[in-house]
Amino acid sequence: MSEAEEQIEWARTHMPVLSGLSSELSAKKVFAECRIGICLHVEPKTAVLCSVLRAAGAEVAITGSPGTTQDGVADALRAGGIAVYGRRADGTREHQHNIDSVVGHAPGVLLDNGADLAAAVASSGTPVSGGTEETTTGANRLREELAGTVSYPVIVINDSPLKAIVENQHGVGQTIVEGFMRTTNLLIPRRRFTVVGFGWCGRGIARYLRQFGGDVVVVERDEVRALEAALEGFHVRELEHALADTRVLITVTGRPGVVRREHLDTLPDGAILANAGHFSWEIELGDLSRTPVRDGIERLDLPGEKRLYLLTRGEMLNLAGGGGNPIETMDLGLSLQALSLARVASGGEGLTVGPQPVPDDINRDVARRMLSALQTPVSSPR
Amino acid sequence: MSEAEEQIEWARTHMPVLSGLSSELSAKKVFAECRIGICLHVEPKTAVLCSVLRAAGAEVAITGSPGTTQDGVADALRAGGIAVYGRRADGTREHQHNIDSVVGHAPGVLLDNGADLAAAVASSGTPVSGGTEETTTGANRLREELAGTVSYPVIVINDSPLKAIVENQHGVGQTIVEGFMRTTNLLIPRRRFTVVGFGWCGRGIARYLRQFGGDVVVVERDEVRALEAALEGFHVRELEHALADTRVLITVTGRPGVVRREHLDTLPDGAILANAGHFSWEIELGDLSRTPVRDGIERLDLPGEKRLYLLTRGEMLNLAGGGGNPIETMDLGLSLQALSLARVASGGEGLTVGPQPVPDDINRDVARRMLSALQTPVSSPR
Amino acid sequence: MSEAEEQIEWARTHMPVLSGLSSELSAKKVFAECRIGICLHVEPKTAVLCSVLRAAGAEVAITGSPGTTQDGVADALRAGGIAVYGRRADGTREHQHNIDSVVGHAPGVLLDNGADLAAAVASSGTPVSGGTEETTTGANRLREELAGTVSYPVIVINDSPLKAIVENQHGVGQTIVEGFMRTTNLLIPRRRFTVVGFGWCGRGIARYLRQFGGDVVVVERDEVRALEAALEGFHVRELEHALADTRVLITVTGRPGVVRREHLDTLPDGAILANAGHFSWEIELGDLSRTPVRDGIERLDLPGEKRLYLLTRGEMLNLAGGGGNPIETMDLGLSLQALSLARVASGGEGLTVGPQPVPDDINRDVARRMLSALQTPVSSPR
Amino acid sequence: MSEAEEQIEWARTHMPVLSGLSSELSAKKVFAECRIGICLHVEPKTAVLCSVLRAAGAEVAITGSPGTTQDGVADALRAGGIAVYGRRADGTREHQHNIDSVVGHAPGVLLDNGADLAAAVASSGTPVSGGTEETTTGANRLREELAGTVSYPVIVINDSPLKAIVENQHGVGQTIVEGFMRTTNLLIPRRRFTVVGFGWCGRGIARYLRQFGGDVVVVERDEVRALEAALEGFHVRELEHALADTRVLITVTGRPGVVRREHLDTLPDGAILANAGHFSWEIELGDLSRTPVRDGIERLDLPGEKRLYLLTRGEMLNLAGGGGNPIETMDLGLSLQALSLARVASGGEGLTVGPQPVPDDINRDVARRMLSALQTPVSSPR
Repeated sequence: MSEAEEQIEWARTHMPVLSGLSSELSAKKVFAECRIGICLHVEPKTAVLCSVLRAAGAEVAITGSPGTTQDGVADALRAGGIAVYGRRADGTREHQHNIDSVVGHAPGVLLDNGADLAAAVASSGTPVSGGTEETTTGANRLREELAGTVSYPVIVINDSPLKAIVENQHGVGQTIVEGFMRTTNLLIPRRRFTVVGFGWCGRGIARYLRQFGGDVVVVERDEVRALEAALEGFHVRELEHALADTRVLITVTGRPGVVRREHLDTLPDGAILANAGHFSWEIELGDLSRTPVRDGIERLDLPGEKRLYLLTRGEMLNLAGGGGNPIETMDLGLSLQALSLARVASGGEGLTVGPQPVPDDINRDVARRMLSALQTPVSSPR
Repeated sequence: MSEAEEQIEWARTHMPVLSGLSSELSAKKVFAECRIGICLHVEPKTAVLCSVLRAAGAEVAITGSPGTTQDGVADALRAGGIAVYGRRADGTREHQHNIDSVVGHAPGVLLDNGADLAAAVASSGTPVSGGTEETTTGANRLREELAGTVSYPVIVINDSPLKAIVENQHGVGQTIVEGFMRTTNLLIPRRRFTVVGFGWCGRGIARYLRQFGGDVVVVERDEVRALEAALEGFHVRELEHALADTRVLITVTGRPGVVRREHLDTLPDGAILANAGHFSWEIELGDLSRTPVRDGIERLDLPGEKRLYLLTRGEMLNLAGGGGNPIETMDLGLSLQALSLARVASGGEGLTVGPQPVPDDINRDVARRMLSALQTPVSSPR
Repeated sequence: MSEAEEQIEWARTHMPVLSGLSSELSAKKVFAECRIGICLHVEPKTAVLCSVLRAAGAEVAITGSPGTTQDGVADALRAGGIAVYGRRADGTREHQHNIDSVVGHAPGVLLDNGADLAAAVASSGTPVSGGTEETTTGANRLREELAGTVSYPVIVINDSPLKAIVENQHGVGQTIVEGFMRTTNLLIPRRRFTVVGFGWCGRGIARYLRQFGGDVVVVERDEVRALEAALEGFHVRELEHALADTRVLITVTGRPGVVRREHLDTLPDGAILANAGHFSWEIELGDLSRTPVRDGIERLDLPGEKRLYLLTRGEMLNLAGGGGNPIETMDLGLSLQALSLARVASGGEGLTVGPQPVPDDINRDVARRMLSALQTPVSSPR
Repeated sequence: MSEAEEQIEWARTHMPVLSGLSSELSAKKVFAECRIGICLHVEPKTAVLCSVLRAAGAEVAITGSPGTTQDGVADALRAGGIAVYGRRADGTREHQHNIDSVVGHAPGVLLDNGADLAAAVASSGTPVSGGTEETTTGANRLREELAGTVSYPVIVINDSPLKAIVENQHGVGQTIVEGFMRTTNLLIPRRRFTVVGFGWCGRGIARYLRQFGGDVVVVERDEVRALEAALEGFHVRELEHALADTRVLITVTGRPGVVRREHLDTLPDGAILANAGHFSWEIELGDLSRTPVRDGIERLDLPGEKRLYLLTRGEMLNLAGGGGNPIETMDLGLSLQALSLARVASGGEGLTVGPQPVPDDINRDVARRMLSALQTPVSSPR
């Protein structure tokens, strides 16, 4: 096996839900005579999805996103009879060309990412029977910019409640702890962390930091969530009152400018700043200069010889300072994709036109499969 | 500042105990007219120790170990008036030459690592008033191979009870969790881990894995420790009975051949093997071939198409798959070094000839300082 | 102070939210010229509420429920100028008479419990401007049996989301652990508990048992909740597959007949049964005879000399085997009562006719107050 | 069965180690022709031990301690052929008479409690081949007051390291949480507890309180233990600095006068005091008057209308406010008793004259049995 094939094989082994689905979908040839056009990062985990679709009878054409395509994986997919467009070196212009190439296959079903395929299909007039959209951003684009052009059902994967549970609460919580340790080489016990935001992600982060002995303060404006945090044993404070004792400040609110220059002035010398929210805008540095200190750490010099440290440029600490989405969250999301595509391909019973949530029965089916996979040894000998 | 100087400064900031000691030792010029010869990895954290000794009046000559010297750090130390021998490219032969160069400074006090300096001093007849030894291996060498040649007190740092608490229990426990996640990109919840050994390291690993939701089985032959594990809520099993349900097997016993080929045959397909003990010998693979899968992961192919996965070649998962010793454990060990050297330099009151444990009052002093550092913001503005 | 007055004073001290509200309501004389009719257990905690209402200007008449009135508390209330009807020895007939006596005061505002006052008011035609209802049962009675007779707003306290958080998750969770230990004199570590139901109460119970080292299996039919349980690290099983290894079985589903005779036949000898759901019907014993063993424990003799043990007759273990609702949950509920009554008394802005949830701003206000109380010493010297 | 017989049967069922030993000891008739004299509380759990000894061939005579004998249990033992002296109503004088009656049976082996039997045997000159002593107090009496009079081996049960693990750390830790909840009817989350002492008991208490969401401060004078506490994530403070924020103060140091009047003056109004150490002397109240508030709670009135609350008169909260020693700790202690008596009765191989620790092999044997019992359903159908 090539290196890429090894990596795909390893991903397959550790994505028990998706690989478990494969034999069922293949047995029924669910995608027989179905052409699926895909826009999704080309890497080992998505490669498993492609091969599952292919084994279940689909004709598959895929393009990745600019700059992330793993060329070895692309080659492995091509060897398996899948049309792959694009390479790592591509820029925005090549990306649009790749999208057009996928649409050129006249796909009846789309797996979209940011609504790029939907936009191309709307321009070209290619007839489509339905599809899925990976992101909330793409769903918004369908509802706004592309409103009126989508005459087929689109299942939006990212809004599944399973993602809040698996990815936001547990995935983000555990990988932020890992990312902090990896980036800083520091231990957690007794360190005073201030976590700003007690939504799904925030409570995961706060809980896992505390499980490692961290002294966690929660900042949360919603009174009921704040009470929940206190009853779980956390200190709850106003941001202004928490800063002076904070050694590590983590933002995860989804709102811009949560931490601003005036807050930085109150933090003690040596405090560390990190963000776990989707955008880096949660921490506003103003005109502070940044000096690289070591991989993933920059020093901010404030008046009075005060030094603060910013992790991974304020980008999501678990992704920028870690190994990407944990494989379990990918197994979940790609399994939701596979079953949603199968629903569309088999006539889309119960679906309506336009963007819509993952059908409840698919959520329950994937939850049941993931539960089963979590509790058993990976697999019996093949 | 150069990149190396930035890294040294960052280490200093996050080693509050050692840097806190600096002003006290400097005020008293504890090492005035004292020549200290050092054998220790030349990297940012040890550089902080060197500068602390220097600021307190010592004349310092240091050499690293073959292959680990960071040349930029060496340059920064030289700029600070410290004699540094060796460079990254050095091999064993150059190392011996570097040792001799350090001894050529006629040091009155030694900071030794593996008893290399003690051996050279014994050969050369350089008069020495005392020193420290970092490792248990070095202490054993002093007691055996070099017995009779050591006429001065040597404080053995590694045997301090503080290391069992800070490094073995908490440091290893947390960094093994980090190393597992970093290497595999997998989450912990509900995964069945079997931890072989419930000593200081083992209980740290078992506890922290469980705090992340792992389903942890403990294997421990000592009946009293096994009962302790059970009362903390762990499953306790014989290794033979634990294997069939194990998804991740972690050895941390200090004994060779704990896991052997017959055990591998009982593990389920897809199981992961890792070691947290000092030597990789705990897992014996026999003649199984290893195929690299991704960074830090090798596949072992067993009969019947069974695949097992070995992490970081069976070497310590937290070090080989992570970022080295956490900075807190270095702060602890180097602070013990600084105070032990000061004890020797100031006449060695209460010390005896030959290897001996860290004096109780030094352990208590460092414990008190570390406690204080753990609970306060890093430092107030300088 | 009399013994009852001591108890009332102690309750007041440990109900910081309600007693904190008192000065605010009194300063504004919120209930000036308002007659409030109350049906609620007459005991120290409700006595604090009565005195708060009285201090804020209300004329108060109260009756308890049959058999629960604490006569000393009733006397203390009477001494404070409150009309109290009923005594401990009362039966159902006297209770109806007491209800009529309260209604005879022509209350403009009602604090009702099971809609007893509402029914009496409907019969007598007493004009009422609004009120509160403590229970869901009372709310259902208002919607069904009394539909059409209620021409005023009724705020239903029990449906507040704060109760799910404070009482169901944390209150029930902690007091079930206490009740189990109190009743059985057994420790938790390593004991295999099977918790049937992973709703708000069930997850509280499962989490707190595990925090004490219990080996907890969760049984839950809803796939998404079951996945949540697994990701929190619990074993998840079908009831049928969990029974044979169960040492303690706890039901908390809200459904009748969850555990039936065929399940008892599968439990091992010596297993313990308990219920934490509202009704004892969750465990059906059929015709098994019960032999008292010690306080709160009965033995069930099954064929084959198998013995099972039933705690507190299958009634809610935390209440029947413990000290009643924890004071924090009473502080919460009675504070919601006080502010809801104040809303009604001050004109009921924003309220509609008939039963309705606690207004969102009142929930937030109480959450904020409770959060503040949880985090500070009880009170400063008066 | 009588009520007492039911209780004995229930104890037997939940003391798997001791009842498991019974068949082994009986099969070998380990105590054939052996007369055992016992001084131990006469209650259901010790009754199980008596019946185990009897079934293994011993002739048994027992007396309890003044005021604790359960007469029904005594009757049940008598019905089983055991000589029981004393009744609940007995005072000190009758106790001495009962001791003499037991010694009158000319026992060759003693199970002693406070060295009462040893003293009587020393006076009477009864020949004894060996025995056990339950308490440390009794062991001290053997070493001091009775030094020179003991010509036989005495195994001191209370010093077994298993007791530190099972009883001190886990038993005391869990039952203090239970006792606090039972006595106060309060919840744990977010409440600020200050635990004075981080020995075996103290760390159990601190850990279990935190597992219930308590905000725990540890006060500990030993620097190394204090560092351990901090690394486990606890706040560590000087007592003087902890008091002003303390809502519940728990002493568990083994030293008198740990908390004195000047400390009480610093506590906030409403703070609660409790003791988990063996003697109530840890909290010194001086001349403060105590007013009963409710069962197990007294109010202390300080100047400035400050009120403090003392739980269970400062006696061990878990015992005085709870249900006595948890059955697992009794199972452990009585199993150590049974095997130690068997060692003495079978010739006392390896034992020396006078008080001595439990032999290591007996500790390991009991640890192994308890481990096994903790992990399996109580028993299979008889």
